[in-house]
Amino acid sequence: MSSIDNSVLIIGSVALDTVETPLGRVERALGGAAVYSSVAASFFSPVRVVGVVGEDFPEEHIAFLMSRGIDTRGIQKVPGGKTFHWAGSYAGDMNQANTLLTELNVFQSFNPDLPVDYKSSKYVFLANIDPELQLKVLDQVPQAELVACDTMNFWISGKRDALLEVLKRVNIVFINDAEARQLTGEVNLTKAATLIHEYGPKYVVVKKGEHGAVMYCDDTICFAAASYPLEEVTDPTGAGDSFAGGFMGYVASTGDLSPDNIRRAVVYGSTLASYNVQDFSLAMFKRLTIDDINQRYNEFRRIVHFDPLG
Amino acid sequence: MSSIDNSVLIIGSVALDTVETPLGRVERALGGAAVYSSVAASFFSPVRVVGVVGEDFPEEHIAFLMSRGIDTRGIQKVPGGKTFHWAGSYAGDMNQANTLLTELNVFQSFNPDLPVDYKSSKYVFLANIDPELQLKVLDQVPQAELVACDTMNFWISGKRDALLEVLKRVNIVFINDAEARQLTGEVNLTKAATLIHEYGPKYVVVKKGEHGAVMYCDDTICFAAASYPLEEVTDPTGAGDSFAGGFMGYVASTGDLSPDNIRRAVVYGSTLASYNVQDFSLAMFKRLTIDDINQRYNEFRRIVHFDPLG
Repeated sequence: MSSIDNSVLIIGSVALDTVETPLGRVERALGGAAVYSSVAASFFSPVRVVGVVGEDFPEEHIAFLMSRGIDTRGIQKVPGGKTFHWAGSYAGDMNQANTLLTELNVFQSFNPDLPVDYKSSKYVFLANIDPELQLKVLDQVPQAELVACDTMNFWISGKRDALLEVLKRVNIVFINDAEARQLTGEVNLTKAATLIHEYGPKYVVVKKGEHGAVMYCDDTICFAAASYPLEEVTDPTGAGDSFAGGFMGYVASTGDLSPDNIRRAVVYGSTLASYNVQDFSLAMFKRLTIDDINQRYNEFRRIVHFDPLG
Repeated sequence: MSSIDNSVLIIGSVALDTVETPLGRVERALGGAAVYSSVAASFFSPVRVVGVVGEDFPEEHIAFLMSRGIDTRGIQKVPGGKTFHWAGSYAGDMNQANTLLTELNVFQSFNPDLPVDYKSSKYVFLANIDPELQLKVLDQVPQAELVACDTMNFWISGKRDALLEVLKRVNIVFINDAEARQLTGEVNLTKAATLIHEYGPKYVVVKKGEHGAVMYCDDTICFAAASYPLEEVTDPTGAGDSFAGGFMGYVASTGDLSPDNIRRAVVYGSTLASYNVQDFSLAMFKRLTIDDINQRYNEFRRIVHFDPLG
């Protein structure tokens, strides 16, 4: 085994999504938190993905993930099972999904058991999934140096204790503004983030959709990132996962956990999220290059830069 | 008359405000768009204010404005009249005021007639007021080099034609996100701002409350400013006016209309807005110094800075 292991281990949902937005509709398209975040991370680092699918999961999707350098041995295929299926729609400012259907299917009995060579992973992203499963993965990666997690309203209300246990054990949490308020009961985002910081994570990254993202460190805001201004959002599904994946992939590729590099990682996360929403499913990532990504990174910088006092 | 005239001329409401927020209540306190913006601008430049009050307007408020270097000869006092009175409350995330009462009083018959030496003003801010009055002021400042305006939902729906005429004649519009959507019928803010740019203004500054501000120039976003993270907002009244006043005062004080300086002006605007909401009425501005302002400007820079690609 090489002594340098800059792979990112990602666990989360692998899904078939039916999505309708004002700009179109896709049916049973490739989706899921682990898929969006793995593909986003794969622009920077090797990725190991952990998840579960049913027999209906098209082989071409696995082939696509592998073509991105993603190790898919951690995706279990359940004989006779059906893949997790989410159906939702977006309207208006598209900041909020309207969930029409959630068929957990093979996820109901999923027990993540990591391939042995996954267990030395230093960079771990616990994408949105049952926090009890996140804990089971955490128990299998004793050498992890940077662990991040995401979650959602469903687990905040339904599995709060397990989620708080996860938060005790991660370095970074990615959470959206509504979830941060729900988790803490605090309307003020700065207060909410401060409370979440006290639950455990050193870095609390609050995603605010079209309003960008804010990172809190040690009780205070340490970085505010604008969102990239798009004239048209085609499909917001997976934006948060793409953000987290881009962030983790970049950090792993550099091996640099300094605050300055973590800020750069937030911008890369924003960059991946902004590209992802420009098309349905994984379509945009399929045609994206690292040059596109670096160009938008620089564009982000141009947009927020201003001179210090003379 | 000096050849250098870096005063900012401001017209807008001068009011007595009754405001209730989760943190307290003030009754008939000093307020109004022209007051907030004039005091904010006064940290940088001389200010000339145009407005109208009734006999009930306390003399101490005029004395306070004069103590800030604000020329108040443009404030007409109507014998026997009553000052404009607004009553509102805020709850939850405080992004939206709940208007309880609007007594126009002396504003119903106001006809702005500028003192003769106001008419050479180069920097003009048409704060929120009936757009027909904004036009009457514009007609009296033929030497204006930089004109900015603000407005509100009431005029967008009630005096759209006059407002569009104002927009044709200004260089900068300050507008909040909800108003930008209302004015254009566009949900997407980037599209909305592009449309407003086509109505006339070179710079469209969209204020997004706790989410900061975005400036659009020539069909594209040219600057995104974070909002300053406050653990507690005491009273949001006047935040937008303070933003515009800080912006205009800074630009006038430098006489520099370069894009780089306009960006700095947006940050000064955000700085003044963030201070203003930390107390009721003008209380925060009464104890604020230029050192405080410059310190927070630097803090804004620290928060959004990240390295360019190496």
